[in-house]
Amino acid sequence: MSREELTKIILPEEKLPKYYYNVQADMPNPMAPGLNPKTKKPLVPSDLTPIFPMNIIEQEVSKERYIEIPKKVREIYKQWRPSPLYRARRLEKELDTPCRIYYKYEGVSPVGSHKLNTAIPQAYYNKEAGIKRLTTETGAGQWGTALSLATKMFDLECAVYMVKISFKQKPYRRVFMQMYGGECFSSPSDRTEIGRRVLREHPDTPGTLGIAISEAVEDAVQRDDTNYALGSVLNHVCIHQSIIGQEVKMQMEMVDDYPDVVIGCSGGGSNFSGIAFPFIPDKLKGKKVRLVAVEPVACPTLTKGVFAYDYGDVAGLTPIMKMYTLGSNFTPAGIHAGGLRYHGESPLVSQLYHDGLLEAKALKQKEVFDAALLFARTEGIVPAPESAHAIKAAIDEALEGKKEGVAKSIVLNLSGHGHLDLVSYENYFSGLIENVIMSEKEIQDSLKKLPVVE
Amino acid sequence: MSREELTKIILPEEKLPKYYYNVQADMPNPMAPGLNPKTKKPLVPSDLTPIFPMNIIEQEVSKERYIEIPKKVREIYKQWRPSPLYRARRLEKELDTPCRIYYKYEGVSPVGSHKLNTAIPQAYYNKEAGIKRLTTETGAGQWGTALSLATKMFDLECAVYMVKISFKQKPYRRVFMQMYGGECFSSPSDRTEIGRRVLREHPDTPGTLGIAISEAVEDAVQRDDTNYALGSVLNHVCIHQSIIGQEVKMQMEMVDDYPDVVIGCSGGGSNFSGIAFPFIPDKLKGKKVRLVAVEPVACPTLTKGVFAYDYGDVAGLTPIMKMYTLGSNFTPAGIHAGGLRYHGESPLVSQLYHDGLLEAKALKQKEVFDAALLFARTEGIVPAPESAHAIKAAIDEALEGKKEGVAKSIVLNLSGHGHLDLVSYENYFSGLIENVIMSEKEIQDSLKKLPVVE
Repeated sequence: MSREELTKIILPEEKLPKYYYNVQADMPNPMAPGLNPKTKKPLVPSDLTPIFPMNIIEQEVSKERYIEIPKKVREIYKQWRPSPLYRARRLEKELDTPCRIYYKYEGVSPVGSHKLNTAIPQAYYNKEAGIKRLTTETGAGQWGTALSLATKMFDLECAVYMVKISFKQKPYRRVFMQMYGGECFSSPSDRTEIGRRVLREHPDTPGTLGIAISEAVEDAVQRDDTNYALGSVLNHVCIHQSIIGQEVKMQMEMVDDYPDVVIGCSGGGSNFSGIAFPFIPDKLKGKKVRLVAVEPVACPTLTKGVFAYDYGDVAGLTPIMKMYTLGSNFTPAGIHAGGLRYHGESPLVSQLYHDGLLEAKALKQKEVFDAALLFARTEGIVPAPESAHAIKAAIDEALEGKKEGVAKSIVLNLSGHGHLDLVSYENYFSGLIENVIMSEKEIQDSLKKLPVVE
Repeated sequence: MSREELTKIILPEEKLPKYYYNVQADMPNPMAPGLNPKTKKPLVPSDLTPIFPMNIIEQEVSKERYIEIPKKVREIYKQWRPSPLYRARRLEKELDTPCRIYYKYEGVSPVGSHKLNTAIPQAYYNKEAGIKRLTTETGAGQWGTALSLATKMFDLECAVYMVKISFKQKPYRRVFMQMYGGECFSSPSDRTEIGRRVLREHPDTPGTLGIAISEAVEDAVQRDDTNYALGSVLNHVCIHQSIIGQEVKMQMEMVDDYPDVVIGCSGGGSNFSGIAFPFIPDKLKGKKVRLVAVEPVACPTLTKGVFAYDYGDVAGLTPIMKMYTLGSNFTPAGIHAGGLRYHGESPLVSQLYHDGLLEAKALKQKEVFDAALLFARTEGIVPAPESAHAIKAAIDEALEGKKEGVAKSIVLNLSGHGHLDLVSYENYFSGLIENVIMSEKEIQDSLKKLPVVE
């Protein structure tokens, strides 16, 4: 079919990938080893067994290029996958650009975001390992909702620590999780030692993903039947999300096109790695595809952080990883893209960015909401504020192409819808959305507190 | 493909219907003519031209079996249509039923419900007629959201009068409409004469669809560039929604199955007629398919109302139609399925029900929410409370089949998701959902006020 014919590019169900793609097989430089948070020696599997099952730990360290997707997981994926790739024709027309803009729509999952792609296998692997209960953190709530449904499907219990500012901004996220049987707590909570400590020292904190992770890990460590699940950052999460990019490549082939630029928003890096990593082998073979991660200026991990060893959480319970970071004690402003308020970045994304294979860009909150509104009014879909970062970056690329007279092919990951974010849009309409920028001084202060690692 | 293989039954894009199906061509008894609300004489087209364009009026009175879908409308439909038909395998397993349960999922539309199926052609036909602005009413808000997007796509303005109780219950619906440029007012409002009158006489009214319709019509009549659009009840709306059932028939063929029973919730009758009417010709040829409309016991139009001439609104601005009605002045209790709080019923549904071709069933609010929760926890989709009426009825059929050892084939219309209804589910979890039943006395009192027509 010609690229001029289709608006909705749908893969038949039999094209649903049978394997996850693992970028570790193709990296020019491997990521630095994780370190035990106490001994600061390289991690060994037994460091992780208190919180992860062995089958997930094996994925975490695997260098295999392809990892088979379990049959039960594929069966569940088929409810909404392969997800559609859309040509944004009405947006292109509005921008009057010669560029072709495509968006991969992950909001078609029953929970409304890409997070279910990894929630399902994580619940599956934990069930296989005999675990009865999972704990996790959530920022905007997309991940907590996804894990609530996934655990229900495998008959596990689920406890979610939700960052306080998002818990307050998005009151119905808790109900959404409850619909699937997930229990949701505002973090910091009084259920954990670290939560109580933070509440004592900073009673007015908006919370951070770093604090919520500490609470979820502390909860998991204390019970033998309980493990912890993380919705981003780690290698196995990036591996699971690779189905997004694998599908995109096949869909672009269907319309005889290939992207000049692939764009995803980036908090911990899961949806970005999901759409971008499957293009890495092509890029290494000389294809001129640009892979762009987009973050908020209020939490500019890749664009302003340093590439250093740091904790993944506030309490120092997680492994120390070499990654781009703003410091694990950094409390980002309470912006509306709660999913992007993370001080660190996936070590895989970090290494590849460090090696020049990925690009990064930081955007201001207001321009992102402007782009979201334009998208809703042309393409009809109300995006999550996180995903709107990718939309804004794609619009910028398309306008640049127009200025330069270059008909670029642009693909963005529309990682989720914004049906639970309408309160943020209400603030936007009321003029309450401010451009919060992390200053150089804040960054320097925050980075002073990195752990000392030889 | 065998019926045992597929979970998600997807039609290729080229199977998107090219024609709407008009049940008026096949009705054993034609519907009674509408009457002018002032003269009480049979309607003539010029009675309707103050609020509808002639191309829609022609559809309203057409007896043609097939009406071509305009090319521009089909192009927009392709963003989400053909919509998927799912086999509810996890629900079946949970119920341990020998029955096959299928659900047609209309929540995949960008606004989250079937309402966009008619909003798009209504905006298109009005645009063709040179109209600049549309007014409408909305109950739960699904229709107002759909019309807001449809008008934006055709560069029209949109004003939505939203029933007060729903406006309060679902605060983010207004923002959703605003995302598409729609203006939304709580009804009764002070923008119209009828609104001001109701506010004076019943300042505490929860509002009704009947009042909101009066306001929208009054607004439309006053401006030459403005027409009115209705999201249910009328013939042209049922015609547009026929794409649902047409697709279902092809999808059932794909898995070599045919329904024993087809179920839809029913307020004004649009989603029910959409899935049910295309089965009428089969039924008339002797096929044993049951077509079941499901309504709340708090507003039991078909099961407790009378088949009589009545107004469609409170102020008596709309034509008088022969339909099942509880009386146009009836104020249903403020139940959470706001889309089902309508005193009347589509005249086409009414006539066919009167002739024994359709069945009806009324359900209590709490059992409907219980069914919604079971559905979310098995199939993963949080349904709109309206759509959950169809789910509950389908579950009842499946359990009856189990009891009788009959492996029935059951199809329900999942007309929309409940992402904007989480506040209702919060009330449900808090034990605040009550079973509101309309008493015999209330019904008799309400029916005393029907207009006198010879």
